[in-house]
Amino acid sequence: MKSNTVYRTFNTEERRELIRITEDVQGAVDEAGISEGMALVSAMHITAGVWVNDDEPGLHADTMEWLDKVAPPSWKAPSNEVAEALLPEGGDYRHHRGGEDNGDAHLKNLLVHHQAILPVTEGRLDLGPWQQVFYCEFDGRRSKRLVIKVIGE
Amino acid sequence: MKSNTVYRTFNTEERRELIRITEDVQGAVDEAGISEGMALVSAMHITAGVWVNDDEPGLHADTMEWLDKVAPPSWKAPSNEVAEALLPEGGDYRHHRGGEDNGDAHLKNLLVHHQAILPVTEGRLDLGPWQQVFYCEFDGRRSKRLVIKVIGE
Amino acid sequence: MKSNTVYRTFNTEERRELIRITEDVQGAVDEAGISEGMALVSAMHITAGVWVNDDEPGLHADTMEWLDKVAPPSWKAPSNEVAEALLPEGGDYRHHRGGEDNGDAHLKNLLVHHQAILPVTEGRLDLGPWQQVFYCEFDGRRSKRLVIKVIGE
Repeated sequence: MKSNTVYRTFNTEERRELIRITEDVQGAVDEAGISEGMALVSAMHITAGVWVNDDEPGLHADTMEWLDKVAPPSWKAPSNEVAEALLPEGGDYRHHRGGEDNGDAHLKNLLVHHQAILPVTEGRLDLGPWQQVFYCEFDGRRSKRLVIKVIGE
Repeated sequence: MKSNTVYRTFNTEERRELIRITEDVQGAVDEAGISEGMALVSAMHITAGVWVNDDEPGLHADTMEWLDKVAPPSWKAPSNEVAEALLPEGGDYRHHRGGEDNGDAHLKNLLVHHQAILPVTEGRLDLGPWQQVFYCEFDGRRSKRLVIKVIGE
Repeated sequence: MKSNTVYRTFNTEERRELIRITEDVQGAVDEAGISEGMALVSAMHITAGVWVNDDEPGLHADTMEWLDKVAPPSWKAPSNEVAEALLPEGGDYRHHRGGEDNGDAHLKNLLVHHQAILPVTEGRLDLGPWQQVFYCEFDGRRSKRLVIKVIGE
């Protein structure tokens, strides 16, 4: 069994960003020198996610709008009455008592999931025609890491 | 390390369907000839999911009803006021500007997750008593693929 | 390729509990005697989950409150009007016709996801500074199992 471990650090300009990383993952597979196996892509933080979906800006904007309703931030006004009702009773997260304001980003991490595992076949990520891999930053403007772990033969 | 890769193509009659695939995954494990390892089951499309849960029709109907509220379609009337409020501002997905009408299916893919990875022990999928594997089609009536990747020894 | 399979059984006092299992997973890695690989952590039941997040009680309470709104139980009054609207039409789950009352726990399993896969590097779980692994019980007070499967070399 061969393996390869690659770390990537993000420090986004915006608080929330979607960053395409398909090519980074393929690079880690190339370096591993495997033909058959798997590539695990996992955010090392609890306010970020990894999402496999379409590289289409309209969809990305839809998804960010929807995430702000289902997992509402308290650092800005809720999007609508449903978002307001999904905030904790009293309007703010208990998690913020420690000085943080990123409670919503923890719930977005839960929804999106912090990782994906990609099949590798004949040395290539075995993805469908529209599948791209994204690092999803929900609480950026600070240094955060992602790990790519490839195993196979 | 041994590996085996199996593709399965679905072309559902209905727009949305849950299809049990536990037996397909066990078949891919058998073909791989492994005793210990893992089986990755991953939709190759961005409007489908893989779900491990109970093979119980009432639960499946509950889940589809709930998914239509939390990730509402715009190609039919919203289920209720909460579903309406979870649609994008203005009532339709930006993603539909390109001619699609499956924005909700992308969000259902996010919720359900597009993949699962199953442990293999002594040559069998190491699942609990009620765990079955389902391919979840949210935008069918067209040819769509799933990949099963088994690795182990 | 080496492998190690460890089962852990939970029988919680409360109906819902979050139980930290990071140390159990590291123990299974140690026993496997691998340096590089992956550890799959998977609930063997369909009303439990595995979550990688912060070990912070405020966050845990926030998450449980939020899960009860998005995936509402019918064995107690809904948290608010949004939770009520996310219950099935008629107010109860079809799944309960068989005598169960845990429909919400199946949806929480879907949201949280029933598994996570952790990278192993130089013999250690390759987690970020605040990442801890939790078994999430949503329908406890009965014996339920989790499987940890480690593969690597």
